Amino acid sequence: MIQVASQIHVTETPRFTKTAILVIGGAEDKVHGREILHTFFCRSGDINARIGIIPSASREPAVIGDRYQTIFAEMGAEKIQVFDIREREQASDPQIQKDMEECTGVFMTGGDQLRLWGILAETPLMERLRHRVWRGELTLAGTSAGAAVMGHHMIAGGGSGESPNRSLVDMATGLGLIPEAIVDQHFHNRNRMSRLLSAIAAYPDKIGIGIDEDTCALFERDGILNAIGKGTVTIVDACQLSRTNYPGVAATDPISLHNVSLHVLCHGDRYNMKERSVVY
Amino acid sequence: MIQVASQIHVTETPRFTKTAILVIGGAEDKVHGREILHTFFCRSGDINARIGIIPSASREPAVIGDRYQTIFAEMGAEKIQVFDIREREQASDPQIQKDMEECTGVFMTGGDQLRLWGILAETPLMERLRHRVWRGELTLAGTSAGAAVMGHHMIAGGGSGESPNRSLVDMATGLGLIPEAIVDQHFHNRNRMSRLLSAIAAYPDKIGIGIDEDTCALFERDGILNAIGKGTVTIVDACQLSRTNYPGVAATDPISLHNVSLHVLCHGDRYNMKERSVVY
Repeated sequence: MIQVASQIHVTETPRFTKTAILVIGGAEDKVHGREILHTFFCRSGDINARIGIIPSASREPAVIGDRYQTIFAEMGAEKIQVFDIREREQASDPQIQKDMEECTGVFMTGGDQLRLWGILAETPLMERLRHRVWRGELTLAGTSAGAAVMGHHMIAGGGSGESPNRSLVDMATGLGLIPEAIVDQHFHNRNRMSRLLSAIAAYPDKIGIGIDEDTCALFERDGILNAIGKGTVTIVDACQLSRTNYPGVAATDPISLHNVSLHVLCHGDRYNMKERSVVY
Repeated sequence: MIQVASQIHVTETPRFTKTAILVIGGAEDKVHGREILHTFFCRSGDINARIGIIPSASREPAVIGDRYQTIFAEMGAEKIQVFDIREREQASDPQIQKDMEECTGVFMTGGDQLRLWGILAETPLMERLRHRVWRGELTLAGTSAGAAVMGHHMIAGGGSGESPNRSLVDMATGLGLIPEAIVDQHFHNRNRMSRLLSAIAAYPDKIGIGIDEDTCALFERDGILNAIGKGTVTIVDACQLSRTNYPGVAATDPISLHNVSLHVLCHGDRYNMKERSVVY
């Protein structure tokens, strides 16, 4: 791939650093081992890391931005910036864009995924960020709402305690950083299997990825997903779907799904997103 | 199969009636369409049905026995008896055994599956009932706790809101009427996917069957399961399981399960328990 020359100085992660996308199921350990956050820190360049924090999903961006800033400072990051972007216009601000170019790692906090999407979607900042992530120039992480936005299709909200049905899940457009995935977070903790199945019925070509709290699906650039952390990463793959009553079914009637593949991955398990199979 | 001569008069369902086992996910409609209960009534011989009700799972057996008695009387059953068996000894009572022989349909109510098992397991009454069910001499139904006891292995209790793990489910021995199944009920309503996955990790050769409320998995004698009712019947089949960390995993650590087949069946869908595939 030919490297496009940029007018502004671009900081890349040091050559020995393997960039990745970390999709975190929320409530990651911020106090003790901090395993997932430390993985992000390492993948961003370790003590050479220049980390940007995007707290835009949150209603308390200053507080949450501060919290992560402290954590990454304690780990020894070279530079940490909080991009407290509250309005869409800020995402076109040349200074913010310039500052973002310096980052070797960007972390999107939790909050409301629709809010995050509304502020960032299709802005020059986001387009550039995606471009750099895909080129392997920086490591991106998102937790909770920051995880939900990763797919092209996004679960914006929904319920539990019902058979899979169309009204159980609110779908929206995501930021498309991992277009082939539909991510759900706080997965088993909030009993979200039924809503993820409802989402996959709508988009059976996508891969449903349910991530538990304090758990991370780390996507390598070669399409390998690594499960990290305390809980499970659940893969719902309908590529062999033999029949469904979707979309003809009424909004609150149950959805049928025949021949879905299910994988419950634990720490250390790996899944090939391209081949749709567990790696041994 | 040679019919064993019996000392006491055995009533079989009329020849035109196809007997079955109805496994009901609890909270079946008792007021309006009564679809599932009516199916049981028909499969027990319609107006020639001689129905026995076993309310032993319940702490209020008289009340619940009465309720079902009224329903089946309104449908027009020829005879209805409530077998209010509260002590294990009663299940050896010759008169109760004789009365049970007259039944063309037996209905086990909800309550506590451990209580039901404690009263009925390995009693002459239960052995004879199983024998007659397997020979196709009567139709058996169980709802909620009455459904949970159907397998050889039974989910006695458990939790939700966690990654699959060994401590999330309490396993016990069931009544073994459908030995190859592990049944869970109130399934999506009470978010029980994680506990059913935990159960299947322990017995991956069994078929996990999660039945929603007001929904029934009707098992024909040829091994075909028919989904009936308002919700879904979820099949969790680990016969192609490629790896799990069970049983070596610590009790509260997450369980991994790779390559599980999942089918979400709606009303009218059929599944072949022997071939482990959806029937079209």
